[in-house]
Amino acid sequence: MPLPRQVFVAVIGAGGVGKCFLSQLSQLASNLSRSQSSPTYLSLILLSSSKKSVHHADYKSITHWEEALQASNTPPLPLPQLAEYLVKAPGKVVLVDNTSNQDVADSYPLFLKKGISIVTPNKKAFSGSYQLWTDIFDAAANGNGTGGYVYHESSVGAGLPVISTLKELVETGDEIRKIEGVFSGTMSFLFNSFQPVNGGGGKFSAEVKTAKEKGYTEPDPRDDLNGLDVARKLTILARLAGLKVESPTSFPVQSLIPKELEACASGDEFLARLPEFDDKMDELKREAEKEGKVVRFVGSVDVPKGEVKVGLEKFDKSHPIAALKGSDNIIAFYTKRYGDNPLIIQGAGAGGEVTAMGVTGDLLKVLKLLH
Amino acid sequence: MPLPRQVFVAVIGAGGVGKCFLSQLSQLASNLSRSQSSPTYLSLILLSSSKKSVHHADYKSITHWEEALQASNTPPLPLPQLAEYLVKAPGKVVLVDNTSNQDVADSYPLFLKKGISIVTPNKKAFSGSYQLWTDIFDAAANGNGTGGYVYHESSVGAGLPVISTLKELVETGDEIRKIEGVFSGTMSFLFNSFQPVNGGGGKFSAEVKTAKEKGYTEPDPRDDLNGLDVARKLTILARLAGLKVESPTSFPVQSLIPKELEACASGDEFLARLPEFDDKMDELKREAEKEGKVVRFVGSVDVPKGEVKVGLEKFDKSHPIAALKGSDNIIAFYTKRYGDNPLIIQGAGAGGEVTAMGVTGDLLKVLKLLH
Repeated sequence: MPLPRQVFVAVIGAGGVGKCFLSQLSQLASNLSRSQSSPTYLSLILLSSSKKSVHHADYKSITHWEEALQASNTPPLPLPQLAEYLVKAPGKVVLVDNTSNQDVADSYPLFLKKGISIVTPNKKAFSGSYQLWTDIFDAAANGNGTGGYVYHESSVGAGLPVISTLKELVETGDEIRKIEGVFSGTMSFLFNSFQPVNGGGGKFSAEVKTAKEKGYTEPDPRDDLNGLDVARKLTILARLAGLKVESPTSFPVQSLIPKELEACASGDEFLARLPEFDDKMDELKREAEKEGKVVRFVGSVDVPKGEVKVGLEKFDKSHPIAALKGSDNIIAFYTKRYGDNPLIIQGAGAGGEVTAMGVTGDLLKVLKLLH
Repeated sequence: MPLPRQVFVAVIGAGGVGKCFLSQLSQLASNLSRSQSSPTYLSLILLSSSKKSVHHADYKSITHWEEALQASNTPPLPLPQLAEYLVKAPGKVVLVDNTSNQDVADSYPLFLKKGISIVTPNKKAFSGSYQLWTDIFDAAANGNGTGGYVYHESSVGAGLPVISTLKELVETGDEIRKIEGVFSGTMSFLFNSFQPVNGGGGKFSAEVKTAKEKGYTEPDPRDDLNGLDVARKLTILARLAGLKVESPTSFPVQSLIPKELEACASGDEFLARLPEFDDKMDELKREAEKEGKVVRFVGSVDVPKGEVKVGLEKFDKSHPIAALKGSDNIIAFYTKRYGDNPLIIQGAGAGGEVTAMGVTGDLLKVLKLLH
């Protein structure tokens, strides 16, 4: 594959996903540089966490990034200065945004217009205002523009090939009828444990506690239970399917935070009081059971009707959504070509390594296009 | 997306997949030509069936291909002349091979070396001798060479994103441990009907007859039952996962054609005598049932052990392979990153429209790379 000889990579974010990505980047850089037919050299010219930055005025490649970041006393560059630094790099630049920061996301159009490509799992760029979405793809070379390329596979379902598949269905002329699935590893775990297909399952509040202890929830579980994370992913898919969704709060999203607990001062207070609502959740379980069904937290896009929604629904026990295991995601595309049996993608939709894999895969796509 | 201004497309094969592809191509060409930022013009400069060819010495674009092909008195060009015609085209050329012809497949290295890109669902090119595989990717720009690009998503699982996903797992540095699945729509239908998860199911010979009547089998059902089609797909996946598989007959493949019927003179004689073996098949069913399992015809690749095999296996009724419906395919990738819960892709793995979709998707990939 004729890749460009040298590409400069800048990485913002060195948390869970960021660390996994940097490790995958090292391996990729080493593989690409050893290609006999057309070696490519990836130079890491900037790495920043929320507190520190490593970069050199002469664009020298950063080696031993962990030590370098630890030893750094330089604060992160403000975004305009970051753009200036990257634009002056002596070659093509790919910015890898491994944060979930809205300010960084808001500056994508600026970076793209300057010819800088972007790969990222940051949902906020693609699920914020529709104006930002338009600005990004009006600037990007893989949109209507002539700037850098932008890819964001990991913004939905982590490394699962969800976005690339949806794009290909659309670009090859299929008609998307419905997209439906479980888009949150946390919600998947909670409901697969709360109401397993074969019966049993614990109290809802107890499953939330277990999920938190296993590290499956955000530090404050309310950030999962409010449904906003799923709503953001549905916003992205609906837009890719051609719907002009204004924002992740412009369609019905069912929150699993009881009204009475919305005012809780802390996540701990919330968790302490959640058992008061177990009876209500058990009632839902029994209702579903009576119909031979189970309750799951899903998102769906009905494209012809232009409807997006997120919340609890009941599924037959033989339905693939009911049969999901662990904290897996599942995404079903119902299209004209695939008819009644949808194209289904299933697997881990969260976690550092698989999220980073989607980012690394996107980086490879950009490298092929930059040749 | 900056696509090349004009690309010449040559299509061999105008059967079920070919016709669907040509219809998708018309739609794609129309969409791409209307792009405001960077229109691309696709010109169909050759179309041939097994008996006729349409092409013009001045590379004039073929319009109304159905009528043109019907009206043509020109026999197909021999392969060396085809190559010569395409090489002299005044621009980049993509050859779309919608045949399952071995001779065409054998000439891919020649076309690729001349800078002609190839997109195809033709399994024979990638599952024949290992030498042909090597020759193809040594010539291709997305291999070790500097020639045209080659993509073959539809050679496994039709339009399902199987090959692209496997490639991305490998290229981003994941470790493939096992690939397992149902790779034949025919075999899927036969066993989902023969032994449904919820009990029941007909005699095996009766299910074969039904499948033939529904058009789910090859004209001679023995061409499905011998397992070679599945073996070819496993050969392709195993090679992509890094195994040097010599040919689709170099590993164990269980044929469902009873030894005693191998000498049948015709498919009809075979179908007439198949009921003699229903007892044996029912015995398999009962054995599986005793263990709470069902029988399915699967293929698998164990990468660390270097083992590929195709044949009948028993699966727990809760296993995704057991729960498959209709004639769907399912492919599970077990990797280091995905752990015990594999990345699963599921859906129709046969049919004109979805197979053509994989080819059209590949054409789009090549167009993006040819810019």
